[in-house]
Amino acid sequence: MSSNEDGALHQSWAWPTGTTRVAAVIGDPVSHSLSPVLHNAAIRRLGLDMVVVAFRTTKAGIGTAMAAAREFGLAGLMVTMPHKQSIIDHLDAVSERSQRLQSVNYVYWEGDKLVGDSADGIALINSLRTDFDVSIRGKAVALLGSGGAARSIALAAAEAGAASVCVISRNLQTASAAADLAGSVGYVGVAADAAQADVVINATPVGMAGTSVAGLSPVGVDYLHQGQFVYDIVYNPLVTPLMELAAAKGIPAGNGVGMLVHAVATAFEAWTGIAAPLEEMQAAARAETLRRL
Amino acid sequence: MSSNEDGALHQSWAWPTGTTRVAAVIGDPVSHSLSPVLHNAAIRRLGLDMVVVAFRTTKAGIGTAMAAAREFGLAGLMVTMPHKQSIIDHLDAVSERSQRLQSVNYVYWEGDKLVGDSADGIALINSLRTDFDVSIRGKAVALLGSGGAARSIALAAAEAGAASVCVISRNLQTASAAADLAGSVGYVGVAADAAQADVVINATPVGMAGTSVAGLSPVGVDYLHQGQFVYDIVYNPLVTPLMELAAAKGIPAGNGVGMLVHAVATAFEAWTGIAAPLEEMQAAARAETLRRL
Repeated sequence: MSSNEDGALHQSWAWPTGTTRVAAVIGDPVSHSLSPVLHNAAIRRLGLDMVVVAFRTTKAGIGTAMAAAREFGLAGLMVTMPHKQSIIDHLDAVSERSQRLQSVNYVYWEGDKLVGDSADGIALINSLRTDFDVSIRGKAVALLGSGGAARSIALAAAEAGAASVCVISRNLQTASAAADLAGSVGYVGVAADAAQADVVINATPVGMAGTSVAGLSPVGVDYLHQGQFVYDIVYNPLVTPLMELAAAKGIPAGNGVGMLVHAVATAFEAWTGIAAPLEEMQAAARAETLRRL
Repeated sequence: MSSNEDGALHQSWAWPTGTTRVAAVIGDPVSHSLSPVLHNAAIRRLGLDMVVVAFRTTKAGIGTAMAAAREFGLAGLMVTMPHKQSIIDHLDAVSERSQRLQSVNYVYWEGDKLVGDSADGIALINSLRTDFDVSIRGKAVALLGSGGAARSIALAAAEAGAASVCVISRNLQTASAAADLAGSVGYVGVAADAAQADVVINATPVGMAGTSVAGLSPVGVDYLHQGQFVYDIVYNPLVTPLMELAAAKGIPAGNGVGMLVHAVATAFEAWTGIAAPLEEMQAAARAETLRRL
């Protein structure tokens, strides 16, 4: 066996082969997804005979995609918009968490059953702990946004022992629903409430490059102060407008790469039963993000 | 950009990515197929953002597979047993050749239509010409076998100007049908007729490792003599029992790797519009075949 320059075991001409198991990321759009790169970096590092690809799947095509997943024996799926909820009807089972969130972000086999689970919120909590040494236990959390990501984070933050989860969103109805997921520690707040938080989390797309809200911060600089930790689930740009505001005040902040890495790692481990090489995936995520600039 | 040790352009962490187009080999069994390795060797050499994987697809699953090919926008398909005929009903069009053979071995997009064609027989003729400098024009061909491969070779040999195509098979009915595909130059013969041929082609699985006919030659040594060329569509082992008989008499012979390479090249070119790097694919086929020993 020769080895690639990155030290992996795959011979360059011998992967993927006819025996290689295939897992897929499905969504629409999906071509921007970093997940295949992260998975394949892990696969190379570990020398597994597996590959992860992206399949653009339309809203109407989810049934076809799931029939194909079963027919082809795909090793697993990661799921992004617009299928996170609609995929539930095509699975054999979902976790209690997915049931509560009505959202699935990865699918794996349990025997001959396809099971869905949601790792988005937990991935953020894991990233805070392992990448930034920030424990959410006992903390006051300000959560900006009330969409799918915010919902999963509200639930995960409450499960991780947050003292309070203040959901801040223009849509009071969805904000209330997200706060409910945090149970007794959840409530709906206003932007100024972010000033009282220990951890400020942006779970909106505000600041994302290439969108109508590029260059914007989801919260005013006046509500940020030292002693807080700021986390932005956006990772394009790698330093987001919110993170720039934080930096200007000397406040530590992280982008969404860590959350993505941990979400991918959870799926990877469910598919393979092998611990994900987090550092390799972090490096691949950073390199690929930079490559795309 | 760094480069892999084989000189390709793909960065090791950046392939496949979310943008990578996926083509597939479908069949059952399919894990033994060399096609993905050959395609991926070509893809690496040319630095294309594409990957070829194998999907085991059951006989009953061909409809699901084709719906998925359309939904996922697969870049193309190669098709092996048991789908070569049944896939026709799931395509928008097939070539006149596929219509006559009732066989498709690769599928490509023509605008928004999925089109099937059969390159098996032509691939053998191309391999004879480019790999062994053997032209079939004016030659007497002895064709051993009357299955799908033999049928496509009978048609291609006649199209390439063979003086005669003698089909030799225990099954006189399928032999007659195969000979009919060669038109006026086709006829059904017996084993002894191989002695009169310029080119002897084994289109049966006889001699294939791991089968009940491993170690056997499809024709007796008495019917081989100098001045002939022997071609065996079997490539496992790389030197087949028939080739050993030929070698013992000093007769030049080739195995099925070249036919496979040319068949893959035809599909590759239909999918990409780019000339296939034949030498790279030959090398990958040999290396992968040896790796599996």
